Amino acid sequence: MSDIEELTQAIRQFSEERDWDQFHNGKDLALALSIEAAELNEAFLWKAAEDVDINKVKEELADIFNYALMMADKYNFNVKQIVLEKLKKNAEKYPVEKAKGSAKKYNEL
Amino acid sequence: MSDIEELTQAIRQFSEERDWDQFHNGKDLALALSIEAAELNEAFLWKAAEDVDINKVKEELADIFNYALMMADKYNFNVKQIVLEKLKKNAEKYPVEKAKGSAKKYNEL
Amino acid sequence: MSDIEELTQAIRQFSEERDWDQFHNGKDLALALSIEAAELNEAFLWKAAEDVDINKVKEELADIFNYALMMADKYNFNVKQIVLEKLKKNAEKYPVEKAKGSAKKYNEL
Amino acid sequence: MSDIEELTQAIRQFSEERDWDQFHNGKDLALALSIEAAELNEAFLWKAAEDVDINKVKEELADIFNYALMMADKYNFNVKQIVLEKLKKNAEKYPVEKAKGSAKKYNEL
Repeated sequence: MSDIEELTQAIRQFSEERDWDQFHNGKDLALALSIEAAELNEAFLWKAAEDVDINKVKEELADIFNYALMMADKYNFNVKQIVLEKLKKNAEKYPVEKAKGSAKKYNEL
Repeated sequence: MSDIEELTQAIRQFSEERDWDQFHNGKDLALALSIEAAELNEAFLWKAAEDVDINKVKEELADIFNYALMMADKYNFNVKQIVLEKLKKNAEKYPVEKAKGSAKKYNEL
Repeated sequence: MSDIEELTQAIRQFSEERDWDQFHNGKDLALALSIEAAELNEAFLWKAAEDVDINKVKEELADIFNYALMMADKYNFNVKQIVLEKLKKNAEKYPVEKAKGSAKKYNEL
Repeated sequence: MSDIEELTQAIRQFSEERDWDQFHNGKDLALALSIEAAELNEAFLWKAAEDVDINKVKEELADIFNYALMMADKYNFNVKQIVLEKLKKNAEKYPVEKAKGSAKKYNEL
């Protein structure tokens, strides 16, 4: 069993034990994910990146993986596959020769 | 090599080829992640969960994994470990006997 | 009529003409507001604050006011009153003598 | 003095008394605004819109107005003007005859 499958199973079990599946529709899972993303951002608020509390980053990032894996599980996405596919798409949107060293969005390159 | 490591390496290579590491401080990575989370949420806006375009969910979720893995790589977090640790913590905050069937926050249980 | 009432009426009329009230439940309005907030943040992504495109800030901030005023209208909040009340509450959470010159959260002061 | 000016002055004074202007660059203000938007969304998480706690909505919406007004003040935007201008733009993107009764984005109409 891969790492991602192992995490997915642990998360699924956690939720089943609490009978929480009833709340986990896609819309609320996406909402929960963005709330956790905001908490991650709060760790950096009014600060330079290097002054962040690493432990807070760790915990909030774990919450984000938690909901992202739940979402992938809900929609039966293969995480490895969808990430590699998106990298391929991004490689077309951001060809090395155009995008190198630039932080511009693809439609401004 | 685990699947998480494999994804991390593919993402790292993508970024190195474009010389994008210079932009990837923790604060902006967190910001990018929350912007992708908002795009995921946009897929559900003004709709019931079941009317969502699954392809859009797939792409936006892939972007979220992309930045979450970059962030974990930047801070040298072991994704498997931090997620399992957080599940343990959550199990203490949400004991089965109290949390079962309830969507309340731990401080309201 | 105050300027806030004037804006509220213009926004209400815009929505009524398009028969959009049916979509504007509180949950989706809040979601729309956070999506606009993410677009405002995108203007600052990978950049120092001073390199931002002011026109983009202006447009995204206008969208945020738009949804915030719709939300206030939906719940019959008096914007002036709720903002002044919150300032009062914040003044108690952040007394000048403790909070002066500090970016800490009230529970860390 | 209009309502918006009055609120802007009260907010400015609150911040000056605490010497907080040093933290209020545009990038962090935008970040703070999106964190408050996430807190507003949290009020609706795992719930139908009608089960929300109105008081929580009120407080989080007040925080959003607070940062939105700070942001407008920082960039010297006239709130009334930028909102009315954006409504005009939106009226062009969403002409009544096309947009009536539809929740589609302008590029899908």
